[in-house]
Amino acid sequence: MVADSVTLAQALERTGPANASAMARAVERQSNLTKPPGSLGRLEEISIKLAGIFGTERPAIGGKAVIIAAGDHGVVAQGVTGYPQEVTAQMVMNFLAGGAAISVMSRHLGIRQVIVDAGVAADLPEHPDLRSLKIDRGTSDISQGPAMSRQQAEQCLEAGINLVVEVIESGVDLVATGDMGIGNTTASSAITAAVTGLDPEQTTGEGTGRNPQELQHKIGVVRTSLRPVVVDGFISGAAALVAGAVCPEARDYMIGSHVSAELGHRVALAELGLSPILDMGMRLGEGTGAALAMPIVEVAAATLSEMATFAEAGVSDRDPEDEPAA
Amino acid sequence: MVADSVTLAQALERTGPANASAMARAVERQSNLTKPPGSLGRLEEISIKLAGIFGTERPAIGGKAVIIAAGDHGVVAQGVTGYPQEVTAQMVMNFLAGGAAISVMSRHLGIRQVIVDAGVAADLPEHPDLRSLKIDRGTSDISQGPAMSRQQAEQCLEAGINLVVEVIESGVDLVATGDMGIGNTTASSAITAAVTGLDPEQTTGEGTGRNPQELQHKIGVVRTSLRPVVVDGFISGAAALVAGAVCPEARDYMIGSHVSAELGHRVALAELGLSPILDMGMRLGEGTGAALAMPIVEVAAATLSEMATFAEAGVSDRDPEDEPAA
Repeated sequence: MVADSVTLAQALERTGPANASAMARAVERQSNLTKPPGSLGRLEEISIKLAGIFGTERPAIGGKAVIIAAGDHGVVAQGVTGYPQEVTAQMVMNFLAGGAAISVMSRHLGIRQVIVDAGVAADLPEHPDLRSLKIDRGTSDISQGPAMSRQQAEQCLEAGINLVVEVIESGVDLVATGDMGIGNTTASSAITAAVTGLDPEQTTGEGTGRNPQELQHKIGVVRTSLRPVVVDGFISGAAALVAGAVCPEARDYMIGSHVSAELGHRVALAELGLSPILDMGMRLGEGTGAALAMPIVEVAAATLSEMATFAEAGVSDRDPEDEPAA
Repeated sequence: MVADSVTLAQALERTGPANASAMARAVERQSNLTKPPGSLGRLEEISIKLAGIFGTERPAIGGKAVIIAAGDHGVVAQGVTGYPQEVTAQMVMNFLAGGAAISVMSRHLGIRQVIVDAGVAADLPEHPDLRSLKIDRGTSDISQGPAMSRQQAEQCLEAGINLVVEVIESGVDLVATGDMGIGNTTASSAITAAVTGLDPEQTTGEGTGRNPQELQHKIGVVRTSLRPVVVDGFISGAAALVAGAVCPEARDYMIGSHVSAELGHRVALAELGLSPILDMGMRLGEGTGAALAMPIVEVAAATLSEMATFAEAGVSDRDPEDEPAA
């Protein structure tokens, strides 16, 4: 960690709520743009949120990046998934070669891939596009004890915060979070249950593909995992939920890109008060849902910022006495 | 019309069903790509449809265009809308100046705007980006008689077909349909009711903004319009419904981009058997819903065509005995 890096405490202190005055100006500006009021639907809502985030009624999204954090999960020892653990490292190589779903999407949508070794249980080769923030070769098995120590968890959060700061300072305005790691839906199910207080039945889904019997086994493993999770203040993964719990203002800066077919995701979005943009039945991970929503978020900002007003375009506005009653 | 242009009869004769063998190969290819089976959800469905359209299991979408047909509707004489008719021509100028919602979206999403005077009730200036396919200065009032003659309707369809052929020959793979015209939701409500046989109550919505009393008036106008519509085999506008009725195979080549907040759109999509990609509460027109879905359609094709297979990437596939039962 370099000398001027941000600590968790500093990041929490510096995170304030979104800019309400910019949001109010954005609402006013929306009403003057050359379209019937409200006719851009959710794009208008998103644009107003972006005004609050960027502190201006004319937000602009230029650079876009997806940060794909790859790591391994000790809980795979419990037989909760159909793929072998070596797939995590193999998929990192697939990201680097440009053959994974997120790689293809990033290429087509103008998104920079930032690939991070956040604890893969293998030695990965040096590569200019791969960042190592590894503190261990995978976590411990959460069904048997804490996945990691509190100190390790804080170290991971700080490494993530500092990476995002660096990416933003390089000219990126919009960051998508992505993941890769065999066993990660089991860990996320446990975190979601711990943060929301819901039963694992309501937070555990089929992941990469579990039959009904296998799903019951996975739910049992999540249930077993919950005792040490709650006791130890489990704090890594299911990042948005954790960030929202640690720093409620962080929710102002989150945009719900899509709702996954994975059961616990709907619960997590509800807990965060986020309404997803897309509902495509996707459950791949890697940041693919977020990447797919990025052009929509960019367009939401662009319509607010760049559309002509009625006055600018010389277009006749609606007769003010003809406003709809409802 | 130039000598080698396509007639309506020729277009109908040349339109065959989608390529079933390419679709079968796409299904097989999807199962070998480096992701859990089905985990890209609706993107996989769309990619398979695209394989059928392009006749290959590796479809590629390069050029994208939105054709925005602007025209006026005589039915505005019945007081069905809050904006004056002059807004149609003013919005064409706004498209040309790049200030409209569809212009901003097209710029950000790499989509070419093709702006067409398809019967605006005003003289528009010459402009390199404006195509004139005008056969009249607006239609007649459908609540009083036919909107146009059968010959005029066929002339409009042929002009549209030939424009699309020209756009595709210039290197465009994916065309979005857009519209501009004060009064056009009333005309589309009448067409939707005529083609589906539903009552105007089920096909008429608030358009640019109607209060409940104004909406009842609009429904009444649509109801009045239906007699000449049915008798005359009304054949312009609500283009997809008409195309689907005239040429059922045309449905194989349509992708439902979004469901509008406008009531009749849901009915039209159901009639066409199309499931919309986006549900954003939008009701602006101009092709904005289609433009917004274009990056998603492009990515659907790209993931199918460009993702690595398990064998190519050296990634371990799931244990075949571990396939989910369901």
